Amino acid sequence: MTDTLPDAALDQIFRTARTHNAFSGQIDDATLRSLYDLVKLGPTEANACPARFVFVRSREAKERLGPALSEGNFEKTMAAPVTVIVGHDLRFYDKLPLLFPHADAKSWFEGSPDERLQRVALRGSSMQTAYLIVAARALGLDAGPMTGFDNDKVDAAFFPGTAVRSNILVNLGRGDASVLYPRSPRLSFDEAARIE
Amino acid sequence: MTDTLPDAALDQIFRTARTHNAFSGQIDDATLRSLYDLVKLGPTEANACPARFVFVRSREAKERLGPALSEGNFEKTMAAPVTVIVGHDLRFYDKLPLLFPHADAKSWFEGSPDERLQRVALRGSSMQTAYLIVAARALGLDAGPMTGFDNDKVDAAFFPGTAVRSNILVNLGRGDASVLYPRSPRLSFDEAARIE
Repeated sequence: MTDTLPDAALDQIFRTARTHNAFSGQIDDATLRSLYDLVKLGPTEANACPARFVFVRSREAKERLGPALSEGNFEKTMAAPVTVIVGHDLRFYDKLPLLFPHADAKSWFEGSPDERLQRVALRGSSMQTAYLIVAARALGLDAGPMTGFDNDKVDAAFFPGTAVRSNILVNLGRGDASVLYPRSPRLSFDEAARIE
Repeated sequence: MTDTLPDAALDQIFRTARTHNAFSGQIDDATLRSLYDLVKLGPTEANACPARFVFVRSREAKERLGPALSEGNFEKTMAAPVTVIVGHDLRFYDKLPLLFPHADAKSWFEGSPDERLQRVALRGSSMQTAYLIVAARALGLDAGPMTGFDNDKVDAAFFPGTAVRSNILVNLGRGDASVLYPRSPRLSFDEAARIE
């Protein structure tokens, strides 16, 4: 247990951070690897780390992604320096002998009903998407997560012949604060929480 | 877009942070409210903020939670200063007129098949759980997320007669680093990611 972070850090990762809609700049390989090196450390169920990440950066890859995007997400995504496709591997348990070496964790999941595997994979990759958003902000990048896209088209274009299924897209880059909408309301503590 | 956070901050929220298994200390109402005030700002689909949080702190509430816990999670959870039940409201769309006031976002979800509502709610509350873990660390608390519990028992004890369903439990407090296991391996960049 440690001290609370300085206000400037809390501002950067939560308080003044925003979901951006317009991006510029460039992001090099080293930055994407630094980002992954933070994201990978966030906890997931049985350390299963089900998320798989495609950092879409080239023009060619952006053009493969384009047809899957909803109209409202098209322009900003094509212009963003990088768009991360976060998917999850429904056969995540194949990695458990590596990721959870002190027990036969693979047997906890292999052969489970699809509904359970989908739930575990979706839960984990969604948590890892949140780590990605916070880690990007911590590295000085802005993020723009999106669910407005055709999952089947993304899966066919980027994960063919695998058990990986797309979950969320996240644009990364330098956000243009001048085109932000005002922040939307949030639920008050009493609307969303209670202490018992 | 801003600078990268200092190493000490990256360490605190990711690099040296660990999932703890033994907790002590006390957490007051003000700290829980400060925690929520960070968590609520993390982005979710259509700003739906589907997560609902019960901060289980009293002996009485811990005793209601106890019978739902797996054997391996019982002792540490009963001893933790606070255990957060993170659930999601399957009727999250009822709050959208407040949370997404500039469009009729409620109509995007109301009447959707249960499978879609469950997916959106699970995805959002899982992201919000990740924000909770990072925000707790940022406030100097240690966290211990768990999925080893009986969801139906938790729902009956804490969310009866509602559309809220439990997702993840998170112990909070001062972690005891002396009883940590070594950190488990993670997937390398090339095992989990690629740049296109």
